[in-house]
Formats: sequence, structure tokens, C-alpha cells
Amino acid sequence: MARLVLKFGGTSVADPERIRNAAERVAREADAGHEVAVVVSAMSGVTNDLVRQVAAISPLYDAAEHDAVVASGEQVTSGLMALTLQQLGVPARSFQGWQLPIRTDGTHGRARIRQVESGALRSVAAAGQVAVVAGFQGLSPDGRVTTLGRGGSDTTAVALAAALEADRCDIYTDVDGVYTCDPRIVPRARKIDRVAFEEMLELSSQGARVLQTRSVAMAMRRGVRLQVLSSFEDAPGTLIVGEEEIVEEQVVTGVAVSREDAKVTLTGVEDRPGVAAAIFGPLADAEINVDMIVQNVADGGAHTDITFTVPKTDLDRATALLREAALAFDSLKPDPNVAKVSVVGIGMRSHAGVAQRMFATLAARGINIEVISTSEIKISVLIAEEYAELAARALHTAYGLDGDD
Amino acid sequence: MARLVLKFGGTSVADPERIRNAAERVAREADAGHEVAVVVSAMSGVTNDLVRQVAAISPLYDAAEHDAVVASGEQVTSGLMALTLQQLGVPARSFQGWQLPIRTDGTHGRARIRQVESGALRSVAAAGQVAVVAGFQGLSPDGRVTTLGRGGSDTTAVALAAALEADRCDIYTDVDGVYTCDPRIVPRARKIDRVAFEEMLELSSQGARVLQTRSVAMAMRRGVRLQVLSSFEDAPGTLIVGEEEIVEEQVVTGVAVSREDAKVTLTGVEDRPGVAAAIFGPLADAEINVDMIVQNVADGGAHTDITFTVPKTDLDRATALLREAALAFDSLKPDPNVAKVSVVGIGMRSHAGVAQRMFATLAARGINIEVISTSEIKISVLIAEEYAELAARALHTAYGLDGDD
Repeated sequence: MARLVLKFGGTSVADPERIRNAAERVAREADAGHEVAVVVSAMSGVTNDLVRQVAAISPLYDAAEHDAVVASGEQVTSGLMALTLQQLGVPARSFQGWQLPIRTDGTHGRARIRQVESGALRSVAAAGQVAVVAGFQGLSPDGRVTTLGRGGSDTTAVALAAALEADRCDIYTDVDGVYTCDPRIVPRARKIDRVAFEEMLELSSQGARVLQTRSVAMAMRRGVRLQVLSSFEDAPGTLIVGEEEIVEEQVVTGVAVSREDAKVTLTGVEDRPGVAAAIFGPLADAEINVDMIVQNVADGGAHTDITFTVPKTDLDRATALLREAALAFDSLKPDPNVAKVSVVGIGMRSHAGVAQRMFATLAARGINIEVISTSEIKISVLIAEEYAELAARALHTAYGLDGDD
Repeated sequence: MARLVLKFGGTSVADPERIRNAAERVAREADAGHEVAVVVSAMSGVTNDLVRQVAAISPLYDAAEHDAVVASGEQVTSGLMALTLQQLGVPARSFQGWQLPIRTDGTHGRARIRQVESGALRSVAAAGQVAVVAGFQGLSPDGRVTTLGRGGSDTTAVALAAALEADRCDIYTDVDGVYTCDPRIVPRARKIDRVAFEEMLELSSQGARVLQTRSVAMAMRRGVRLQVLSSFEDAPGTLIVGEEEIVEEQVVTGVAVSREDAKVTLTGVEDRPGVAAAIFGPLADAEINVDMIVQNVADGGAHTDITFTVPKTDLDRATALLREAALAFDSLKPDPNVAKVSVVGIGMRSHAGVAQRMFATLAARGINIEVISTSEIKISVLIAEEYAELAARALHTAYGLDGDD
């Protein structure tokens, strides 16, 4: 007998028929003798619709009320899922975030889970029932409903799995696993059988949208074995596990493409101590997340050019802040037409020449690299957006990731 | 400065524009210096839609899960209303039933309010904020969401007004007050300016659908002055108050028509002690509510005919139970084609001949009375359904209730 947390995303519970399909999977695991807890998202489209209703009242809405409204979607699905399980003969009951509770901080709209009280879940399991928990939501220290941000139900599932010391957390979604690259970009992308937490974390944060980045980080920290699999097919998905469980180590495991960042270039910035703080301080204060940064010395050392990336959605705000900042520069050039292409793999640690192959591959296609950033297991390059697909396909081939046609 | 509870029904918050219209009414009361709390229903149609989703899974659903799903409608409206008030410059925040909490018993689907904790409401009011409370819902003793049954938001509003010792509870709806009869039946029906709690209670329970009966009973018990008024017009509505506040006392205040009951006649029942228990015991055990009862001695005293009414929705169940009961009778005749017409007025206590006028008026139209039941301030007759409108109009005229054409 294993202890499992099964999470169903919005497309997997989009209508009564799909809820029933998901419930049948739960019933199968329960019938096999496993102890099961379920986490559900809102039905596909419901959250967007609720967010639209909130935003229509005012673009500057109160985030606490936003959360109270938007969390209702998962509440409905959890009740409907519990009822469907009962109908299939599986004893079940729903829980909203405040009922366990799932305690979070008070950052409405993107709250962080602090603690999952597992007492009620354990009692329900001991009574032979399946707990169906509304994902994406929690309870703030002052007793209000919080939401965890886009993809937050993944994090709910991982937090539950950690609190219950579950053997595995299965994330049911509309794709059948994690791919070496987005198949819409690289048709010869292959499903990955096993990927290490660290790799998945880089792939998620570099643009692969299968899992919320935060959920992967939590799974890594708490040692929760994850599986991503399709709720529409009967096939094993991708296991996301500790590095020690990875048998066949590849140099590069996957290629990620992100179009979410924009580039900002400041030319003729005075090159003196404190200038970086003058640029990035105001952005940090405004909670604008700066990702890649590169600095070039422009003329004899007295002035410098600085290029960095910010989320496209924050570009206007960032440029306005920089124009107001106590900062001398020649020009400020915003450019939203960029893409970030990354190669990720734990094998990089022990293999030389990985970066060189990336640069050579891109150079051979005439693709200019604007910014580079690296970590121990990742190399990212910023390029003109129009080359994104070409670059991804070329790198996918160059690192030997192509599957059969 | 007065302390007011304003309640907006489903049609009054049916879309963003109507929510804004309702919020403007709240803002006007707040701007006038009143201390205001708001109760909202789900947007018109939402609750029915949620109930349909639940019933589609199974007709024999778990009432606790039904409540968890269905209560989401009010949750959404309360958040949207708080946001709209904020947008109008009125500080506001939403509360769900569990957040105050509104404590109820555990009878899911038609829970009764036991206690409203008013501490949070008082703090919010002291901080100059408007509390927007989700109607229709509460928290059971074991921490689950309950709902209060159809029209339950009226009861939420009255319970809040009682807990806050409010000066008045205004029920905003799609009609502009309580009428002497349903204007769709009696075109010359008039709006009543003031009606006593007892009268409103009889009118509600005899078929006038303006207020949930339970909310009127609670208002009477706790002395909460109610006003029913339109959210689409700027006019005073109907005040529902203690008898001592009624200035012009009429013999009959209103005429109510109900088509919700069916008649059951048992003929040739052995007339012996315990026979009533043999008939009504099984119905009571099955929670079937018997309203009117009449017994006629049929032959020389050994046998009797018994006629009574049950809700139409329970008719099939009631006849099945009676056929299974340990009971000898000649025939069992169910008849759903009946209507109950009632005249109500506290003036009846001090005026003779009210019943006689009713019987004479109906006799003059050739309408046969099948069953009669009376209380101190009400006379109800059961008649063939096809005469319902004719009877109501004739009685409305006979008791001098007709307004100008």
C-alpha cells in the first residue's frame, strides 16, 4: 500500500464527464489499496472568468477580495469531485483551504504556504475516506482566504504530499509528461522518463510550463517524488526525483524557450561604485524581478553600457522608474522582442564544452547572442525573438535530444 | 445616525451593473452617516446552476457537499460587492459565513442559525468599514459549510440585524413591497405601507413569496424592524413591524394564494382511537408536513372520511406510505389540483363575521370549500385549483382591499 496525492488540473476537471474520468482514476488507486488524497484546480476557464469579473470593477483591486472571489472555483470542483467519488462508491469529502487549514502568509494573489495541518487529512484517511482538497488557496494569518498564484494547485499538492509523507504526488494534466522541449516548437521533442528536481526547476523557471516553479522547489526541498502524467491516457508520465534516482545521465536533458522577458539597455552610464544599486534598487523596491544582467565597458572606462531583462508585463513600469531615478545615462532602449533559450542538464557539471557547443550551434545559424547567463546545470542565452524556434530546434539536434520522426 | 443592515437579493445583484446600483444605495446610506452592514445573495441564476451541477452527479447527493458547492455563489457576490464599494470610495470588506462565523446546526441544505458572532462586524464598523456578508450560509458544529435553504439570505440579514441590534433591516428585492395580494392574480392589489410581523408570517407561510417565512419569524421573535423595498426604484417599501406600530388597523390586510399543497382523501376509515396516529405517524416519520386536516363521520359513526393536505412534491411519497401503513380504508384519493386561499389580518381578533363574509363571497361565485383551517388572524380554505384567481379577486373586493384601477 502506498500513500498517494493525486492532483488534477483545470483541463482534467473541465466538465462533469472529465471530473468523472478523473474520479475513476482516483477510484482505481483507492481500489488498489492505496491511501489517496486528491487536490483539484478550478474547472478550466473558471478562474480566468472570475479574475475578469474582479478586474472589470477596477484594475487596482483589493487583492484580498480578489482572492475571496477567485478561490470559489476550486471550492466548486472539490465538492463536485467528492460527490462524483461517492457516486462511484468511494467514500470522500471535500476540504477548502481554510478547513484544514493550509496556512499561508498574507501576500494575497501569490501567497506562500507556511504549514499544512494534516490532522484532519489523517483522520479522514484512517476512516477510509478520500479527502478532496481545493487547490490554489489557503488561510492568511488574519483569517482571510489567500490564493497561491497561477499554477498554485501544484504547490498545494506538493505541500500536502510533504505533510502526509506521501510516497508520490501525481500531477494529472493535459500533457503526458515533461518533454525535451515544447513539441509545438520542436516536433521531434521526446518525453523524458525521469528528470532530476534541479533540472525540472531550471526547466520550469526557464519557460517550461508543465509545473509551477514553486511547486518543484518545494518538492526538491521536502523530497516529494513527483509524477507528471496525462489524465486522458493510460501511460506512465515523467518522474521528477532526486538526482540519485537518475540512471542514465545526459549532458543536456532539455531545451526551454521563454518569451516572457524584455530587454532594457542603458548606454553611457557613469561607471562608478553604487551605480548598480542606483539602477536595480528602484526596480527591486517596485518588486520588478531582474533576471539576466550584462555590463560592457563602452569608452576608456569612464562610462559603461548595462543590459538586463525584466518581465514583459513590467517593462513600462521599469522604464518609467529608471527615467525618474537619480541616474545619468545617454539612452534607455527597451526591447520586448527577445526570447530566452536555455539548455539544462545535471550532466553539465561533469562535461566540458557544453557552452561552446551552444555558441557554435547558434553562430552557425547566424543567431546573435545578446546576453548570456549560466548556472551549474543551465546555460541561457537571450536572442532576437524571431530566432527562437530556429535556435531551439538547432540546439535540440546538437545535443542529441531528437527522437524518431 | 442609525445602524442598518441592507440585504440585496439575487435579481438586485444579477450583473456588474446591478451590483453597482446596489453599491450606490449602500454608499448613499453610508454617506448619510449611517452604520451599514450588507448581506448579499448569489447572482440571479447562479444558485440554480450550481444545484443542477450537483443533482446531475446524483439525485441522492451528500447534502454537506451540496452546501460546499452551492455556497460559492454568495461568496463571489460578497467579494464583488466589497470591490465595487471600494471603487465608490466606501471602505468595505467581505465575510463568508465561516469567517464571522455564523454558527448553525448541522442540517445541511436547510440549516438553522444558532448564533451570529458579531465581534468582527463591530470591529469593522468601528473602523468605518462596511462589512459585506455572504448570505444563505453558515458554519456547522463540525466545521463544515451549511446553507439555510431557499430565501436563506433573508434570514442571514435578520440574524445579523438582531446580533448588531440594528435599527432596521432593509430587504432590497425586485418588487417594491408587500402587496394585498399577488398583483399577477389581482391587478387591483395595493402595496401595503405597514404590516404586522404576525400578518407577514401568515402571508409568507400561506404563499406570499416576498420573504422567507423563517426570516419573518426570527424578526418577530427578536424585534427586528424589516423593510421590503425595490432596488430599482426610489420609493419607500413596506415596513414589517410590531403590532403596536400599526396605526390603521384593517380587518383583512391581505389575501394569499398557494398552489403548493395537494389533497389526500381517505374514505371508510375505521373510526377508533389511534387511527389518526396510524395515518399521520408514518408521514411525520418521513418528514412530510401535513397542513390542513378535516374529518367527517361517514356512516352511523363506525367509519369516517379523513381529508388532509401535504406538499405537492411529497404527494407520491405520502400515498405510498399510506398504502403500506397498518390501516384499513375503502379508498385513497390523491388530488393535486387544489389551491389554498387565505385571508389574513390582525383585525380579525376584534371583528366578528370575517369568516362568514369569506364563505358567503365564495358561495356567491359557486366555489365549493373542501377544507377550512383557521388561526386567530387567518382563515384558509382549500378549493379546486381552477377557481384560485376568481376566489382571490372576489375576496380582495369583498374585504375592501381593491385599489384604484
